Amino acid sequence: MRPDEDIPVRIGRLLAFAEALLRTQGAPPADAALTARFLLEADLRGVESHGMAHLVDFYLRRLQQGQIKARPNIRVTSDAPAAATIDADNGLGFVAGHLAMQLAIEKARATGAGWVACGNSTHYGAGAAYAMMALEQGMIGFSLSTGGRLMTPPGGRGRALGLNVLAVAAPTPRGFPYVLDMATSVVAHGKLEIAARRGEAIPEGWAIDPEGRPITDPARFRPDGLMLPLGGSAALGAFKGFGLALMVDILSGALSGFGTSAEIEAGRIAAHCFGALRIDAFVPIEQYMEGMGTMIDAIKRTPTADGSEVRIPGELEHALSERRRANGAVPLHRSILAGYRAAAEELRVPYDLEEVS
Amino acid sequence: MRPDEDIPVRIGRLLAFAEALLRTQGAPPADAALTARFLLEADLRGVESHGMAHLVDFYLRRLQQGQIKARPNIRVTSDAPAAATIDADNGLGFVAGHLAMQLAIEKARATGAGWVACGNSTHYGAGAAYAMMALEQGMIGFSLSTGGRLMTPPGGRGRALGLNVLAVAAPTPRGFPYVLDMATSVVAHGKLEIAARRGEAIPEGWAIDPEGRPITDPARFRPDGLMLPLGGSAALGAFKGFGLALMVDILSGALSGFGTSAEIEAGRIAAHCFGALRIDAFVPIEQYMEGMGTMIDAIKRTPTADGSEVRIPGELEHALSERRRANGAVPLHRSILAGYRAAAEELRVPYDLEEVS
Repeated sequence: MRPDEDIPVRIGRLLAFAEALLRTQGAPPADAALTARFLLEADLRGVESHGMAHLVDFYLRRLQQGQIKARPNIRVTSDAPAAATIDADNGLGFVAGHLAMQLAIEKARATGAGWVACGNSTHYGAGAAYAMMALEQGMIGFSLSTGGRLMTPPGGRGRALGLNVLAVAAPTPRGFPYVLDMATSVVAHGKLEIAARRGEAIPEGWAIDPEGRPITDPARFRPDGLMLPLGGSAALGAFKGFGLALMVDILSGALSGFGTSAEIEAGRIAAHCFGALRIDAFVPIEQYMEGMGTMIDAIKRTPTADGSEVRIPGELEHALSERRRANGAVPLHRSILAGYRAAAEELRVPYDLEEVS
Repeated sequence: MRPDEDIPVRIGRLLAFAEALLRTQGAPPADAALTARFLLEADLRGVESHGMAHLVDFYLRRLQQGQIKARPNIRVTSDAPAAATIDADNGLGFVAGHLAMQLAIEKARATGAGWVACGNSTHYGAGAAYAMMALEQGMIGFSLSTGGRLMTPPGGRGRALGLNVLAVAAPTPRGFPYVLDMATSVVAHGKLEIAARRGEAIPEGWAIDPEGRPITDPARFRPDGLMLPLGGSAALGAFKGFGLALMVDILSGALSGFGTSAEIEAGRIAAHCFGALRIDAFVPIEQYMEGMGTMIDAIKRTPTADGSEVRIPGELEHALSERRRANGAVPLHRSILAGYRAAAEELRVPYDLEEVS
C-alpha cells in the first residue's frame, strides 16, 4: 500500500459525478443513482476491487459500447410464492440485482423464505450490498453471482468457470452485522488488479500459468493465467472451492435458465441468485439474537497467535464504513481519478473531485 | 490405504445387523432402519468417515449412555409456508434430519422454496444424503450441520467453532447428480481418524497444535489439536472457510434457536438446516437440464496436468456407489468389525458379517 497514491474524495461529489457520467449514456436517473450508491458502498467498506475504481473502465465503457443496455426491459419470467426468476435484459446488474433482492425479501416476508434467480444480467459489483438489504428486515440475506471465466478446476490447466461469488449477511446484537462476501477462488481477481496497480507481487497459491507454475507477478496473469479455487491444492481442499463455484453457477446460471459461467461470454454476461430467510418465521428474533451474541462472544474469547482479537466477517468493513461515512470521504487511487478526468472531458461532465473543501 | 485390512461385508446383513444393534437400545424399528440406511449410504459412496465405522463407538454407545434419546418427541416448533423449525429432542440426528428435509421438500413443492432449521439434535452422519433427497423431486437440496468444536479461527490458537458442514445436491442430465459435501475446515476430522487407523501421516496444512505448529502425526491431534478453516492461512483465504463455518452455525444453531457450535457441548448436540428449491418454480426443468449439461461438458473439456478428466463433485462417489450396490457389499476396516463382534456379544445380537457367501 502506498497511501500517498490515494486521494480522498468527497462522498457527495463522487456520487453526483458517477450519476452524471452514467446518465450521459442514457441510464435513467434512478438507475444511475442506484448504481453509484452500490459502487460507493463497496468503497466505504474498503472493497476497492468492486467499487468506484471500475466506474469508467468497466461500467461506463460497456454502456458506451452497447454491451450493457442503459434502458433494459427487466421482467419477472417465473413467479411462485417463495421463488421467482428475473430476466435482466442485459442491463446494469445493480438495477436488476436490487430489484431481485427486493422481490426475495417480499417473498420471505410472506412465506418465510424467498429465492430469486436472475439471468441475462451484467456485473453487479460487490455481492455484500444485496445480501445486506435483508438486515433491516430482520432477515438473513444471500447473494450469489457468476464472475468472469478465469478459474481452473483442481488439477486443470484451463479457464473453465467463473470467479463465482457468494455473499451472506445476518443481523447480530454486537453493533455490526455478520457479512461474508467471498469469491470461490483463493482470492478475487480484483486483488490481482490492485497489486498490479500498486506494483506489488502476489503470494504463491493465488494463480498459476497454463503450465501449472505459480504466478507471483500480477502483470503475468494476462492473457492466460488461471485463478485457483479456494483450497488451492487437491490435498488442501481445492475441490471445495471448485464445488462452491459450481453451486453458484447452478443457482444463478442454470436455475435462471440464462446460462452458467462455463458457456456465457466471460465477464460480459452474468447471472445471480438472491435469497432471504425471515428470522422470526423460524425463531423469535430475541432468541436468535441471544444465540448470535453468545457465538460472537465465544469466538472473540479465542486466544490468538499475536494477541489480537478474532474478527467476525464484516466487522472491520463495518467499522471502516462508519469511519468513512463520518469523514464524508473515500480514498481513490490517482490512476482512477486520471481516468475520471479524461471521461469527464470526453463527455462534458463537470469534474470537481480533487478540489479541497 | 492397506486394502488387506478391509473386509467386504454384505449390504443386507450389514443393514440387518445395524438395525438389530440400534433396536437393543430402544430405537423404534423404522428409526433403526432409517439410521442404518443413512450410514450405509455413506459407505456406498466411499465416505468411510461418516458411515458404518461409527455405528458402535458413537451412535450405539451414546444411545446406551443416554446421550442420544432412542424415543425422542420430535416437534415442529415454528411453521410458515416456506420455513419451519424442528426440535429434535436429542434423538438420533438421522431421524430428525430425514423428517426436516421431507418438510423442506413439501414446502418447496407448495411455494418453490422450503427451509427448515433443526436444533437440539445429534450427529446426522454425512450431509449429502439429506440434500440428495431433493433430487428425485426435481429440486436442488441443501443440508448444513454443526460439527464437533475443533476448528480455530484464522490466526487463532483455540477450539472456537464446529467443523461445520455444507452439502448441496442438484440434478444433472449426465448420469450422476452434482453433490458437494464438505466440511468448512480444510478436511473433515474423519480424515484424521482414518489416517490414524491406518497409521499414515497427514499433510501439513490440515491441523496445528496450540502453539501453531503443523500436526502431521494424526495421533498428536488429541487432546488439543486445532483443525484449520478451509483456505488454511490468512493469505490463502482462511477467513472464507471461517466465514462459511459461521454461516452454517447461523443457519443451524442461531436460526433454530437451539445454540451454535460455539456454545453447545462439542460433538454431543448438533443443529442442522435443510433447504429445497423446486427447479420448475424458476425455469422449465428441460431448460435447467440443458444448462447443466452444457456446463458439465465445458468443464470436462478443460485440459489437465496429467491428462485425466475433470470430475464433477459427486461423480466418483456416484460411480463407486453404483459399483458397490451391484456387488452387494461394502468394505469395512478390520478394527471396525472387531468392535462389531464385541458389541454383538455384549448385546446378544447375532453376528454373521464375516461369513463368506
